[in-house]
Amino acid sequence: MSTEGTATSATPRLAKNTPSHPLAPLSTSEITSASAVIKASWPAHTDLHFKVITLEEPPKSEVLRYLDAEHNKKPVPSISRKAFINYYIRNTNKFHEAIVDLSSGRVLHNVLLGAFVHANGDGDEIVAIEKAALEDDGVKAEIAKLQLPEGSVVISDPWIYGADGVGDEERLYQCFLYLRDPVNSAEVDSNHYALPLPISPVISTTDMKVIRIDLMPTGADNTIKPVEPYKVQPPNEYLPEYQTLRTDIKPLNVVQPEGASFQVTREGTSSTLSWQKWKFRVGFNQREGMVLYDVRYDDRSLFYRLSLSDMNIPYADPRHPFHKKSAFDLGDAGAGTMANNLKLGCDCLGSIYYLDGVISDDKGGAVPMENVICVHEQDGGIGWKHTNYRTGRAAVVRSRQLVLQSIITVSNYEYILAFVFNQAGEIEYEIRATGILSTQPIDEGIEVPFGTIVHPGVLAVHHQHIFSLRVDPMLDGGDNRLAYDEAFPMPRSDFNPHGTGYYVQETVVEQSGGYDTEYANNRTFKIQNANVRNPINGKPVAYKIQAPPFQKILSDKDSFNYKRAEFSDHNIYVVSYRDGELYAGGKYTNQSRGGTGVRSWADRKDNVLDTDFVVFIQAGINHIPRIEDFPVMPCEILKIHMKPVNFFDKNPALDVPPSEQGFNKSVLVSEQHRQPSVEATIGQDGSCCTPKL
Amino acid sequence: MSTEGTATSATPRLAKNTPSHPLAPLSTSEITSASAVIKASWPAHTDLHFKVITLEEPPKSEVLRYLDAEHNKKPVPSISRKAFINYYIRNTNKFHEAIVDLSSGRVLHNVLLGAFVHANGDGDEIVAIEKAALEDDGVKAEIAKLQLPEGSVVISDPWIYGADGVGDEERLYQCFLYLRDPVNSAEVDSNHYALPLPISPVISTTDMKVIRIDLMPTGADNTIKPVEPYKVQPPNEYLPEYQTLRTDIKPLNVVQPEGASFQVTREGTSSTLSWQKWKFRVGFNQREGMVLYDVRYDDRSLFYRLSLSDMNIPYADPRHPFHKKSAFDLGDAGAGTMANNLKLGCDCLGSIYYLDGVISDDKGGAVPMENVICVHEQDGGIGWKHTNYRTGRAAVVRSRQLVLQSIITVSNYEYILAFVFNQAGEIEYEIRATGILSTQPIDEGIEVPFGTIVHPGVLAVHHQHIFSLRVDPMLDGGDNRLAYDEAFPMPRSDFNPHGTGYYVQETVVEQSGGYDTEYANNRTFKIQNANVRNPINGKPVAYKIQAPPFQKILSDKDSFNYKRAEFSDHNIYVVSYRDGELYAGGKYTNQSRGGTGVRSWADRKDNVLDTDFVVFIQAGINHIPRIEDFPVMPCEILKIHMKPVNFFDKNPALDVPPSEQGFNKSVLVSEQHRQPSVEATIGQDGSCCTPKL
Repeated sequence: MSTEGTATSATPRLAKNTPSHPLAPLSTSEITSASAVIKASWPAHTDLHFKVITLEEPPKSEVLRYLDAEHNKKPVPSISRKAFINYYIRNTNKFHEAIVDLSSGRVLHNVLLGAFVHANGDGDEIVAIEKAALEDDGVKAEIAKLQLPEGSVVISDPWIYGADGVGDEERLYQCFLYLRDPVNSAEVDSNHYALPLPISPVISTTDMKVIRIDLMPTGADNTIKPVEPYKVQPPNEYLPEYQTLRTDIKPLNVVQPEGASFQVTREGTSSTLSWQKWKFRVGFNQREGMVLYDVRYDDRSLFYRLSLSDMNIPYADPRHPFHKKSAFDLGDAGAGTMANNLKLGCDCLGSIYYLDGVISDDKGGAVPMENVICVHEQDGGIGWKHTNYRTGRAAVVRSRQLVLQSIITVSNYEYILAFVFNQAGEIEYEIRATGILSTQPIDEGIEVPFGTIVHPGVLAVHHQHIFSLRVDPMLDGGDNRLAYDEAFPMPRSDFNPHGTGYYVQETVVEQSGGYDTEYANNRTFKIQNANVRNPINGKPVAYKIQAPPFQKILSDKDSFNYKRAEFSDHNIYVVSYRDGELYAGGKYTNQSRGGTGVRSWADRKDNVLDTDFVVFIQAGINHIPRIEDFPVMPCEILKIHMKPVNFFDKNPALDVPPSEQGFNKSVLVSEQHRQPSVEATIGQDGSCCTPKL
Repeated sequence: MSTEGTATSATPRLAKNTPSHPLAPLSTSEITSASAVIKASWPAHTDLHFKVITLEEPPKSEVLRYLDAEHNKKPVPSISRKAFINYYIRNTNKFHEAIVDLSSGRVLHNVLLGAFVHANGDGDEIVAIEKAALEDDGVKAEIAKLQLPEGSVVISDPWIYGADGVGDEERLYQCFLYLRDPVNSAEVDSNHYALPLPISPVISTTDMKVIRIDLMPTGADNTIKPVEPYKVQPPNEYLPEYQTLRTDIKPLNVVQPEGASFQVTREGTSSTLSWQKWKFRVGFNQREGMVLYDVRYDDRSLFYRLSLSDMNIPYADPRHPFHKKSAFDLGDAGAGTMANNLKLGCDCLGSIYYLDGVISDDKGGAVPMENVICVHEQDGGIGWKHTNYRTGRAAVVRSRQLVLQSIITVSNYEYILAFVFNQAGEIEYEIRATGILSTQPIDEGIEVPFGTIVHPGVLAVHHQHIFSLRVDPMLDGGDNRLAYDEAFPMPRSDFNPHGTGYYVQETVVEQSGGYDTEYANNRTFKIQNANVRNPINGKPVAYKIQAPPFQKILSDKDSFNYKRAEFSDHNIYVVSYRDGELYAGGKYTNQSRGGTGVRSWADRKDNVLDTDFVVFIQAGINHIPRIEDFPVMPCEILKIHMKPVNFFDKNPALDVPPSEQGFNKSVLVSEQHRQPSVEATIGQDGSCCTPKL
């Protein structure tokens, strides 16, 4: 790395000196100021391709002082606002990382990054890559060999190139080509994934040229055949106008006659939410999307920061070029960039509040992102109940939940990501995987053990989704510890004469590393504060982690897949806290080679006992496609829970008012209920899910 | 066993010959007829204590012929109605099992059961046991030693006796004693579990006498001290009137302006439900509570019968008398017997339909059980979504669910049990554990590794909840098979040069037995019909099973706990079908000794390939109590899923109408939303959760 352009040159259009919260995302003016500062550090007319302009979060030590003052209603210290910037000299491989002080306009850091460090994709770039692939004469010549019907439209899906160490020093994209239903070529929303083509151009982003055209193996082995005339199969559309829709589903409305129970306080680009003793700050950035800061319950601190840190999706087909399909959707693209504009009545039910975001574009401008997070309450069923069988008196409360939901579209796939809070002091992170399977062509009559045929001629290859949730704890203050409980049978003895006894043993984690759940031992990880004891039972206050089992990465330990996905091999990673260590797969995941993520940090073998540490919780799906997952997949749901353990002195939901008909207003359905069914209507005036075009 | 009283004697008051469905639960008149037949088989004035009078389900082969005719709208065969009966000669240990043909009034079977076979408890009996314990002079003398405050009320909780082979031939109950808050002794719903006493009378149900008074160890070892003056600790109430309730939770109503989307057809004691291509029959019985029969989707058969088969709750404290705490709540008491009368607006939200049940009482009469199952729809969040990033068009549907919920109160604990159906052809069985921990006294300053102190002087001992869901499959007809998929890394080769490939391998289960999930291999069990192939990809139609991991029973293999809980040691049991093999822990679990449940059936090593078999799916919680679980426990939720795998030819929810504001009527919450909070009100006129007294 070489430092260059650490300019103290003239600083144009500084952001107005508004007293932003130190954790507030960059504002529109801050983004444009930052890019202006960087542009000014280069000779005039240097064309910069900005990749990221985002808040450089201040050192945690500074923020903690700020938060302490804030919570104690004392004067807050001044913390300088900084922008983190990634950019290229456009149409070159010169990829830079910079930090700009927004108050002074000083460039604090501005370096050309070394070989094998590549930026994420951006929207304009993806569209340009699509186009470059389809306009290439060589690609056209290959497509011609398919002898597609008159008027056929070919669609190009750019994919991150992955990395295998073979000719991948350049920043490349692998395009997968598909055919729009030729019988209905005017349908711009046709599901082209039902008609995959065996041709895959590779594009270099330096000059946007096709450097190679890969042909795909379409049999059971890795033989590559020359392109042959394409057999057009029937379409398989997911759009409602191509279905015979059900007509017997009646409306279900969530009505809150007195409004929602939460309060939102907006301060510039930052918002704080208060709901049922919970209070936290919400941020939004290009990479992680939704981020929560300073999460508190009943004025006690719980977490400094919560976010989805990373995800990796390696595919099972080992044949070139498919073996490189291993996406890091956050680092290679960005959960913020890909966040859906959520629509009232489509993506959430009830009384909805929307939060907006601001991210940067490739010119260094600001892009307002509207409705990227929806906030609403939902009923979570019964929260607790007990009936005294002697008197018949039932005490029952419903569990109300607060949901912060964001939805991202990653080309074919969708992820619905939500933090869910309840009245029992519990936080849940819910992931719903939906969208369309990434498909490839397969010859008729072939079966392979690494994929499922989901449509004639269409193979959906097995793949893993491995998610990493970053949890930066602050349970009743700093200096927490990670421990785990396990249950073991007691040996037979005079104390245990019938062989029925068992006991729980706690193990404290002292060193950074990757740790696994042993389901056979009921191993349960807990974040504790050993300095704060439960007033009744003297146990350290704690939150336990409940995450579903998942199969660890299947790529072997010498593979690039394994080396790059540094979080994919353990249920839990714990590392000592260092500013800037946010992304479990490393800061730059696109065509990465490993060595910069959480496995590497854990290898420091730091002390993590009674100090500041961070936990990365992994969860995942080994998605063996079913035909039911096509042409669009019913949500597969994963939940990670964090629940108090001896943190309170009794059930924190004990003070929830009882569940009563006067409040809930349920309705008795009459016997033999047979109302006329209601016709479902599509795309009426005022409807929300019709095309934007 | 000796056969006796197989009377062909006069058959009084026969049930009217109404053409009941063969799977319909016994009606009121059928129950009373059955008991009358049995009474008539004995000399006049013989006092019988009935335990169970329930439908003896006809042989499956007969029912299948009936269902086949029913679905094909052909004349149905006549199937005789039979009652299964358990009874004692009152105040003796003579426990009988009988079957009565209800049409003819013939006693088909009537046997005295052998030693070590004991009946479940019943409501009247439990109240009598409570009373017997408290009225015993020896018990009174021990209580006197506690020197309780004037006006103290002692409560007796009868517990099943468990079995350890030591002096437990007789049918016994172990009573645990508690103190009602002496400062508030008039509060009949006071949480006595906060004030446990160290005295435990044991009652024989033959003569309702105390046979022994156990004193409890209250330290860290198994020393038993003489009863000392009791230190009264503060109360810990769960009732709302003892809390300072939250005032900032606003109403959330589920409104279905056009009514519910399901239809219920009642035929006598049986109901069929139709909803969104689903159709099934609902039964209800004393032991299992809610049972589903003949579950079909879009006119294709899926399951012959679904029910919670059994549950076992062994406790971790190995010391006498606690080592015997190992309850089988279904077999020892009955999910039907203990079913809550559900209240509108308290237990479910929205448009609710209630189903009733009928069970028998100890005199052989019928007990109507109102509102034991609530049926309602709920919103399950987004069902599927895809946005075309090129056009911005989003297609999204919400997942509507149909819920059949039943709640049971087992003394201190509650279970909320629900079958949940969705529009993607999926069934979920949800278990919520709530209610009050079973507590015992502990000396001050003591910690033990087998329990948690949840209140001063109160120990909540670790315990396992192990559930067994019985699934009798009929996927596209009979002759199904069980198989499992596992994913393995491919070895490096020319085919897999980068070490990234993996494959799925299917193993077919040929023999009955206990099988386990290997999370490291993503082992996934599937029920298949190999005779019916998916029209697109040729795979056998299948449903997969997704169940959460759980720690298997911790009691050792030589223990009575292990021998009795025959389902507790494997994730999956599969056995060849035999009529009457319904309960995984065996037909008679109270003080059972093993050898009569699913482990024993599996030991037949029968063929289960392409034949009629039954799967028992286990799930569980190793409940290490937190102080947050007291004085009443926030729901802990377990879900077992069954999802189609290559059963349909595409996503079965593709035809769900799109999610639109015109249908959903969501509301935008205005910024800075700060409405006045609403006061929660308790026990208003018309409210549902106030005392019945």
